[in-house]
Amino acid sequence: MTDDVNRRYVLRKRPNGRIDDSTFELIEEPVPEPGSGQALVQNLYVSVDPTNRAWIGEEPTYLPPVGIGECMRSVGLGRVIASDDENYPEGSLVTGLTGWQDYIVTGAGELPLTPVPGDTGLPIECMLGALGLTGVTAYFGLLEIGKPQEGETVVVSAAAGAVGSVVGQLAKLKGARAVGIAGGKEKCEWLVDELGFDAAIDRHDSDWREQVRAACPNGVDVDFENVGGEIMREVFGMLNLNARVALCGLISEYNSAERDQGPPLARVLVNRVTIQGFIILDYFGRFPEAIAQLGQWVSEGKVKDRHTIVEGLEKAPDAVNMLFDGDNVGKLIVKV
Amino acid sequence: MTDDVNRRYVLRKRPNGRIDDSTFELIEEPVPEPGSGQALVQNLYVSVDPTNRAWIGEEPTYLPPVGIGECMRSVGLGRVIASDDENYPEGSLVTGLTGWQDYIVTGAGELPLTPVPGDTGLPIECMLGALGLTGVTAYFGLLEIGKPQEGETVVVSAAAGAVGSVVGQLAKLKGARAVGIAGGKEKCEWLVDELGFDAAIDRHDSDWREQVRAACPNGVDVDFENVGGEIMREVFGMLNLNARVALCGLISEYNSAERDQGPPLARVLVNRVTIQGFIILDYFGRFPEAIAQLGQWVSEGKVKDRHTIVEGLEKAPDAVNMLFDGDNVGKLIVKV
Repeated sequence: MTDDVNRRYVLRKRPNGRIDDSTFELIEEPVPEPGSGQALVQNLYVSVDPTNRAWIGEEPTYLPPVGIGECMRSVGLGRVIASDDENYPEGSLVTGLTGWQDYIVTGAGELPLTPVPGDTGLPIECMLGALGLTGVTAYFGLLEIGKPQEGETVVVSAAAGAVGSVVGQLAKLKGARAVGIAGGKEKCEWLVDELGFDAAIDRHDSDWREQVRAACPNGVDVDFENVGGEIMREVFGMLNLNARVALCGLISEYNSAERDQGPPLARVLVNRVTIQGFIILDYFGRFPEAIAQLGQWVSEGKVKDRHTIVEGLEKAPDAVNMLFDGDNVGKLIVKV
Repeated sequence: MTDDVNRRYVLRKRPNGRIDDSTFELIEEPVPEPGSGQALVQNLYVSVDPTNRAWIGEEPTYLPPVGIGECMRSVGLGRVIASDDENYPEGSLVTGLTGWQDYIVTGAGELPLTPVPGDTGLPIECMLGALGLTGVTAYFGLLEIGKPQEGETVVVSAAAGAVGSVVGQLAKLKGARAVGIAGGKEKCEWLVDELGFDAAIDRHDSDWREQVRAACPNGVDVDFENVGGEIMREVFGMLNLNARVALCGLISEYNSAERDQGPPLARVLVNRVTIQGFIILDYFGRFPEAIAQLGQWVSEGKVKDRHTIVEGLEKAPDAVNMLFDGDNVGKLIVKV
């Protein structure tokens, strides 16, 4: 079928803080043989997300921690290269939890691989971006939990990331004011000049708090929270009556042992705020609706999907660290 | 009409921490004269609630702070003693924001006074207890926000207070496990022996954390939060998948300048928890439905309504401090 090897990153040691050289080991195994009724998938791209870091911690998240010696879990996009399953025709694209490896057999992973809808006319990387889990996360998190109304103010943290950049664009499509918080001048310019955010604040500026307040003269109606820590704390201090917090991520805490503090809740009480934690897998059955709508908006140029692509599976561990360093703009993807 | 005087407690100085002798002044004024189309109400009881303390702080809550020189705001229960308004017949009972004073004229307060439904066969103090704002708070907070299902675990803090004691009883009526956290052995015995809580933990015990965990072997599905601080933090560490937090009060913070910390939110994210701050006035239009249902349950003995009654309007400031010292069981009321 192929005389190639299957490179796999397996977890060796749970990191204490950042991922380093001792965290993973890249091993080589024979390419797996698909059995009867199975298909063999070649992994083309893996998605790099903050949740990768959470999955290798001690504590269970919404999925069990990756076990020591197990292949690193990640979302990916692959092509079927051999098939004995009509649901996965040879040459078709699939997405799902492919892991950090070159090849995977259908049915072998934690969740079934999902066939990618036929040709969308868009670059296939979009299937891991605006039309992938991060786009879908922005879609349901903002529209179902944030519920922005025309004229309201939406603040999104990690705004130049894969989720945040879509959130702000969807907020604009709904007639709301979109305010982004991101790390770096160029990212902020991109958010305002290219994506149409009303304002973007560089969290590295010493006066970022004042800038956020100035950008939200009418307070905050929706906080799409990706970051946590002092940024969340500041935004919580601006929450309006009946504001909604879509709690999507707490990236500032994932690498840190200090997670024992949260924002004060007095304003949440007095202003009748709703905070809703969510995990996108809960919307699994409704993904097609989101992907169809996002695909249309991307095709029409109403949602712009930007990718930062790192070449080579061997770079995957470094790529996760890049996320925490803010070295990506838009969706971070490793080309296997 | 009466040759009595109208005693009124007016706010002199916002307290820094506890209420003390410099906070209020008891002044005497002539009894107000009702005008055309008005009624004169004699205040019989005033309700003592944690929100009284919040209303005299610097910061606006859900109502503006009581102004210096203004009569202290409070809920009360009074009887119409003279009337030129057919909505308020002489001899009828009314409830609403009567304030800390002997007499009030209808239409003079911040909100209209509400006629009390005809004879319920229950002690009139119940109108400030299980059938009053605190009972209604328990009713909507638990049933509309907490939404306990049969077999789920409900934890309520300040469980022996006016709200908490009703919350636990309603949780039992809905087939849930009711776990209370309260301050003192006798209160805990009352909760379990008289009100039917499944467990009650004395927060003064050095091992209260272990006791709470032991009382919730299946985790916590509903946190009816009245207290905040370390108690909320502990309960947040036990929240189950799709748990609900009805954020009703943060009494541990009202007397304190240190309000800058909250519970960590990582578990809220991973377990898709919903936290909903609420203020009972938002349910104003639905009070009759709650009062009717609670009245029935109290009449049937399914909800027990206990009162701690302090005699004399002059004791009202001390009574607020009693709340924070945990010196009441059930609803704390001042008999004017």
